[in-house]
Amino acid sequence: MTTHRIAVIPGDGIGREVVPAGLTALEATAARFGIDLRFDTFDFASAGYWQRHGTMLPPDWEPTLRAYDAIFFGAVGWPEVVPDHISLWGSLLQFRRTFDQYVNLRPCRLMPGVRSPLAGREPGDIDFVVVRENTEGEYSSIGGRIFSGTERETVLQETVMTRVGVDRVLRFAFEQAARRPKRHLTSATKSNGISISMPYWDERVAAMTEQFPAVRVDKFHIDALAAQFVLHPEWFDVVVASNLFGDILSDLGPACTGTLGIAPSANINPGREHPSLFEPVHGSAPDIAGQGIANPVGQIWCGSMMLDHLGHPEAAAHLLGAIEDVLAYGPSEAPLTPDLHGKGTTAELGEAIAARV
Amino acid sequence: MTTHRIAVIPGDGIGREVVPAGLTALEATAARFGIDLRFDTFDFASAGYWQRHGTMLPPDWEPTLRAYDAIFFGAVGWPEVVPDHISLWGSLLQFRRTFDQYVNLRPCRLMPGVRSPLAGREPGDIDFVVVRENTEGEYSSIGGRIFSGTERETVLQETVMTRVGVDRVLRFAFEQAARRPKRHLTSATKSNGISISMPYWDERVAAMTEQFPAVRVDKFHIDALAAQFVLHPEWFDVVVASNLFGDILSDLGPACTGTLGIAPSANINPGREHPSLFEPVHGSAPDIAGQGIANPVGQIWCGSMMLDHLGHPEAAAHLLGAIEDVLAYGPSEAPLTPDLHGKGTTAELGEAIAARV
Ligand SMILES: CC(C)[C@H](C(=O)O)[C@@H](O)C(=O)O
Ligand SMILES: CC(C)[C@H](C(=O)O)[C@@H](O)C(=O)O
Repeated sequence: MTTHRIAVIPGDGIGREVVPAGLTALEATAARFGIDLRFDTFDFASAGYWQRHGTMLPPDWEPTLRAYDAIFFGAVGWPEVVPDHISLWGSLLQFRRTFDQYVNLRPCRLMPGVRSPLAGREPGDIDFVVVRENTEGEYSSIGGRIFSGTERETVLQETVMTRVGVDRVLRFAFEQAARRPKRHLTSATKSNGISISMPYWDERVAAMTEQFPAVRVDKFHIDALAAQFVLHPEWFDVVVASNLFGDILSDLGPACTGTLGIAPSANINPGREHPSLFEPVHGSAPDIAGQGIANPVGQIWCGSMMLDHLGHPEAAAHLLGAIEDVLAYGPSEAPLTPDLHGKGTTAELGEAIAARV
Repeated sequence: MTTHRIAVIPGDGIGREVVPAGLTALEATAARFGIDLRFDTFDFASAGYWQRHGTMLPPDWEPTLRAYDAIFFGAVGWPEVVPDHISLWGSLLQFRRTFDQYVNLRPCRLMPGVRSPLAGREPGDIDFVVVRENTEGEYSSIGGRIFSGTERETVLQETVMTRVGVDRVLRFAFEQAARRPKRHLTSATKSNGISISMPYWDERVAAMTEQFPAVRVDKFHIDALAAQFVLHPEWFDVVVASNLFGDILSDLGPACTGTLGIAPSANINPGREHPSLFEPVHGSAPDIAGQGIANPVGQIWCGSMMLDHLGHPEAAAHLLGAIEDVLAYGPSEAPLTPDLHGKGTTAELGEAIAARV
């Protein structure tokens, strides 16, 4: 039996509520499949830590987290206490870069019992993944301001794309596409308007396409692609995108499937030289934090993605199946949370999924 | 009677088909309201011109167009003949900058007879405008490539925001919001991830907010905002955004209302020092070009926006009303085009709307 050491970081807001539910479901799955998961919980990367220490992370955060196989993350961000750009650049975005988690993988699928805002769509109709570049591109801290406070004030912000950075995320996306039944990859671009970085992206996509002859490749400009997510989400299989475009598409996709509140996200270092990080997309949700009613499905779905990454695809699929079964029962037979029209609490829904495992 | 001189540029593909229909409807409206419109048609800014001359525009395009009060534009882009980034930077994007059309205004509304992909929405539920910055921001041609062709290859692309550029589009958006019944302005940002330019944008929004105490202001990060366009489009009234974010939102918005094929777009120089340009969002549509079945409503709606800009709000509203009436008749009573499940041609639908005027 392999042992996997997991760093648990609940973070802020509902992160602190859904993480325990996620652990309950993970422990049940691990027990059933004979997987040895060891959890250590940390209180940094949170507004509370910032209030006590004036920083988001302790000085030794890097060696500390490096000792783990994966990071099971809740949510960070509490703008009342610390501005978002400080809390995020001081923790989550740090982790992504330091641990070279250069792939952000976000599944978009219609789930049973979850209503899509799109008319006439059924589970099975929509099932794709967004592969987002996660370390460079539009998210750079290079740039600055000149002539501050005057009418000539000018701000520059650099987008940085490297061949290494672009090629490795494209390779990951093509490999994913090659493994899926539809073998279809869509690239998000904007080379008709953003005239230096995006034509470069297209060029690297074209080069990679030659290495994967079995994959059908197309591309859309980001404006048209966003529109097609709404009009024809069934067209997509694997969508690969730069950091910013991937960010937008991986919120928009789950919005189209009605799963924004339960979507997971995996920040992956595919070579496993560094720990990968698994976090639900929903964030800290100050509006409902503290009430015990947050939906833990995103966090539990993250657990499934983490099991997959750790080399347990069967256990991962089983846990995802348990989630789908419990969602399919509906609010009258399962303790679904209020967002799913049920009366269950975060803990009750976590336990119901764990029991179904 | 004031005379307005209009430069007509049909451009490429279905641009050449919908522009004549647009003119038919405009002429009917002008006749009814006693407005004197003089049209001159130009064949530049098209793939055909490029094939003949090797450039998109004649050397004297700028003084030529400057003599007009407005430009009534079809579509440009025909990738088989000329790559998009050449045709667009060589014409449309040129016009936007040279004529300082710093506002791109794009209405998103549910129209009678047009089905929305969103479940359970009716005309009246969704009615907002996107105000897009149209000259700077993420669309800059500053940047370049180093270590070409090697593993160290690195590409830089600059985003440029100026106080003048940001403030003037914000002011326009706030003024629009102040004039509308809901007085609600939403700013699109991404200051949590893009850490130099977007916090600057937020700062200027905050400064402008103080000058418009009657306007209710909120902001969303672009990822969350794209999601809310799908989940809660009824929340929005005026949405102001940078060049790139505005581009995305102004395709996504019409996609949510099912009107992507008929959405108009106004590239405005609010001070009227330079001609403004009116173009439908749909583009040249190579897949259906040449068949005479393109829907001309976007082009005609552009005509309505142009009349408004030229100081004829009543005529503009009347023409928009005629469009809505004809759409409401449905395919059995009006010659709607195939995209609206009718059997009409571009010209027939244009004539039906002109007749209704
Ligand atoms: C064609 C392209 C350059 C253009 C843009 O991005 O501005 C188009 O998408 C638009 O919105 O008018
Ligand atoms: C919080 C923010 C910086 C982050 C991002 O944009 O990457 C979030 O939106 C996400 O997608 O994980």
